Amino acid sequence: MLNIRYFNKSQSDTYQALDTPCLCVDKQTFLKNLMHLRTRTEALGASLRPHFKTVRAAEALKYLLPDSSSPITVSTLKEAEALISEGYTNVIYAVGISAAKLKRIKNLQHKGQTIRVLADTPEQANQVNLFCEEHRCSVPVLLEIDCDGHRGGIRPDDPLLIDIAQLLHTGAADFKGVLTHAGESYHCLNPDALREAAANEVKVALDAAARLRAANIPCEIVSVGSTPTAHHYENLDGITEVRAGVYSFFDLVMKGIGICELNQIAATVATTVIGHNHEKGWLFVDAGWMALSGDRGTAQQPHDCGYGLVADETGQLLEGLQVSSVNQEHGILTMVNDRQLKPDDFPIGSRLHILPNHACATAAMHSKYHVFDTQAETYEVWNRIQGW
Amino acid sequence: MLNIRYFNKSQSDTYQALDTPCLCVDKQTFLKNLMHLRTRTEALGASLRPHFKTVRAAEALKYLLPDSSSPITVSTLKEAEALISEGYTNVIYAVGISAAKLKRIKNLQHKGQTIRVLADTPEQANQVNLFCEEHRCSVPVLLEIDCDGHRGGIRPDDPLLIDIAQLLHTGAADFKGVLTHAGESYHCLNPDALREAAANEVKVALDAAARLRAANIPCEIVSVGSTPTAHHYENLDGITEVRAGVYSFFDLVMKGIGICELNQIAATVATTVIGHNHEKGWLFVDAGWMALSGDRGTAQQPHDCGYGLVADETGQLLEGLQVSSVNQEHGILTMVNDRQLKPDDFPIGSRLHILPNHACATAAMHSKYHVFDTQAETYEVWNRIQGW
Repeated sequence: MLNIRYFNKSQSDTYQALDTPCLCVDKQTFLKNLMHLRTRTEALGASLRPHFKTVRAAEALKYLLPDSSSPITVSTLKEAEALISEGYTNVIYAVGISAAKLKRIKNLQHKGQTIRVLADTPEQANQVNLFCEEHRCSVPVLLEIDCDGHRGGIRPDDPLLIDIAQLLHTGAADFKGVLTHAGESYHCLNPDALREAAANEVKVALDAAARLRAANIPCEIVSVGSTPTAHHYENLDGITEVRAGVYSFFDLVMKGIGICELNQIAATVATTVIGHNHEKGWLFVDAGWMALSGDRGTAQQPHDCGYGLVADETGQLLEGLQVSSVNQEHGILTMVNDRQLKPDDFPIGSRLHILPNHACATAAMHSKYHVFDTQAETYEVWNRIQGW
Repeated sequence: MLNIRYFNKSQSDTYQALDTPCLCVDKQTFLKNLMHLRTRTEALGASLRPHFKTVRAAEALKYLLPDSSSPITVSTLKEAEALISEGYTNVIYAVGISAAKLKRIKNLQHKGQTIRVLADTPEQANQVNLFCEEHRCSVPVLLEIDCDGHRGGIRPDDPLLIDIAQLLHTGAADFKGVLTHAGESYHCLNPDALREAAANEVKVALDAAARLRAANIPCEIVSVGSTPTAHHYENLDGITEVRAGVYSFFDLVMKGIGICELNQIAATVATTVIGHNHEKGWLFVDAGWMALSGDRGTAQQPHDCGYGLVADETGQLLEGLQVSSVNQEHGILTMVNDRQLKPDDFPIGSRLHILPNHACATAAMHSKYHVFDTQAETYEVWNRIQGW
C-alpha cells in the first residue's frame, strides 16, 4: 500500500497537490503482485495470460507482459483495439461473441494480429463460420467450458461439446481449444476449498480437451483461470495458460478469500475529509460511489467491509473505520467496533485512502491513475482505456 | 422510453449499427421530464436549479436551462469548469467545500462567474474566510441545513447555525443563504409520506432562513430539493429555488417511489443476447456492471428489480424478466415470476434494453449517450463530462 514516508520531495509535492478523489497506485506493490503470480504460474509450466480488464492502461502493459507476443485477455473490443495499436499480438476476447462484433474483430485481424473469440452455442459457431465464409477470413475460436455452474459455457460431458467444436473445426472458423473460468472460487473461504476449486477447474478443462482430441479435434489451447484459483494450482500438466486479472491490484474481496494481505492492495482512492457529524459519529469524505463504485462484494463475506476500509497516508489501516454508506460524491465513514470516532483526529481537509472492495470496479470509475514508485522515485499518470 | 417503430430510416440504420452495450436516450421523454418539473416549480413561484450530476453532457445544457444565467447545481468542480467554459454563470457546487478546492473555485470566479460553495462547520467557514483574505477575493457560501438526518448539514435550531453564518457574513467570504436536501425522501413509498417530506424540507429551510434574518444576517438564497420532494411541493412561498437531478432521465428507483411511470424513463442500456443456459433459464447479455453500474437501489423497495428490468426495442416491458446478476461485462437475465423464459424468443444477437435502477449511476458508466429524437427525427451523440 502507498506510504508517503517513502516519497522523495518531488513525489511528496505532487501527492499533496492531487485533487481528491483520485486513484493512487503503489507501483512497487503492483510489480510484486505481477511477479509473484507470473513466477508461480511459469514454475508450473504454463503461460500467464493476464486479464487486462482490471488495469486497462496502456502504460501498464510493459509490466503486465514480458513482450509484445505475450498472451493477454480482454473483456471488450476497445481493449483489444488498444492492444493491437500498441503492437501486442496475442489477445483473447473472453466474452461470448455476437455476430455484430465480428466486423471489428476482422478489422483487427487485418492488421496481422490474432484476436481469439469465445463461443458456447451452435448458433455462435454457425454465425462465426458464416461470417468467415462471407468475408473470406478466419477467426480463431475457443469453446467456453462450464467448470462450476457459475455463468456460461458447456459442461465437458455435454454432447454439444463435440458438436460445437466440430462445427468450428470443419467450418470456415479456426477452432483453437477450450477455456474455462472458476467464477465460483470467489465464494471459497478457505485454502482447502480454493485448492479444490483450482484442481476442479484444471480437471474440467483437461477432460474437455481429452474428449475433443478423442473425437479427432485438435485442441491447441487449454486455458484456465481466476485470481483465486490461479494462486492455488498445484499441477498444471496439460494446461497451456492461466488467466487472472484482479491479482495486479488486489482488493478487500481477495483479502476476504485469503488470496492477499492488506499490504498487497496496490490501488486505493485518496479522499479528503469534508465534514463531521459529532452526534452520530459520522465523518464525511469527498469519495462516494462515483470514486469508489457501488461494489459491495464483501457483503457476503465473514468480514463485511461496507464500501471500503480506510488507511492513512502512510498505508496504516485505521482499525474499525469503514465507509458505511455512499452517495454520488459523498462517503460516510463510521467506526464499526466499540471505539469512538475522534473527529479531532480527522480535521476537515485531512487526507485518507479508501481500500476498495473490488479493484476492477473501483479502477473503472477513474480515467487516470496516479502511480508512485517509491523505489525508482518516480511519479507517472496512467490513462485508463474506457468504454467498449 | 425508446421505441424504434417511430424511427425514420436514417435513425433505424444508426440504431442497428450501434455497438452494444451503450446508453440510449429517448429525447422526447427527456424533454417532457424537464418541462414537467420546470412548469410545476415555476408555477409555485420558485426557480428550478437542475442538478447537472445526472446528465453531465454539455449538449444537454440548452434543454436543461432556459439561458446562460439560469441556475444550475454541480457535484464536481469538473462540471463547474465545463459550465463556465460553455458560458453558464450561475453555479452551486453542492458538496461540502475543502480548502484544497478553493484555488480552482477562484480560477473560475476570475472569469467573472459565480460558483457558490457549501459549508456546515466553523472550520470550513474559517478556511474560506482565510482563503479570501489571502487571495483578496470573495467566494459566495451557502450554509447546508440538515432537514431529515440523511447526511450533512446543521439542524436549524443548532446554535452553530448563527455562529457559522455570522463567521461568513462578517468575514471575507460572501454569505448567501441556506440549502437543504431531503435525502430521506428516497425512502418514502407513498404520496402522503412524500408530501410530508416535501413540506418538512421547505419548513426547515424557511426556519433556518428566519433565524438568520432575526440575527440580522441576510439570507438571499433559500434552496431546497430532491427529485422526490420536487414533485410534491404544494407551497414554495419564501423558497427561492428547487434542485433536482434524476428527474431528467428517471429510473426504477423513482418508479418504485411513485415519482414516474416506466414510460418516463428516458435512458436505457442497449445490450445484445450472447448466450443461453436452457437448463437454468438464464439469458446472457453483454451488459454487466460496467454498463449498468452495480447499483441495487431497488433492493430496499417493495419491488426489487435486481440490476434492472428489461424492455424490447419498441419500449415494451418484458414482464417478469430482470437482470438477476452481473459481472464486469456479463449480465444474467432470468424470469422472476411463474412464466418460463423462452430462449427462442431471444436468439443470440437479439437486442434488448435494460431500464436502470439508478440513472445517475448508470449514465456515469458511459462516456457518450446515443440520443434519438423521434419527433424531430434526429440522432445526436452527447459526450459525458467525466471525472473530478
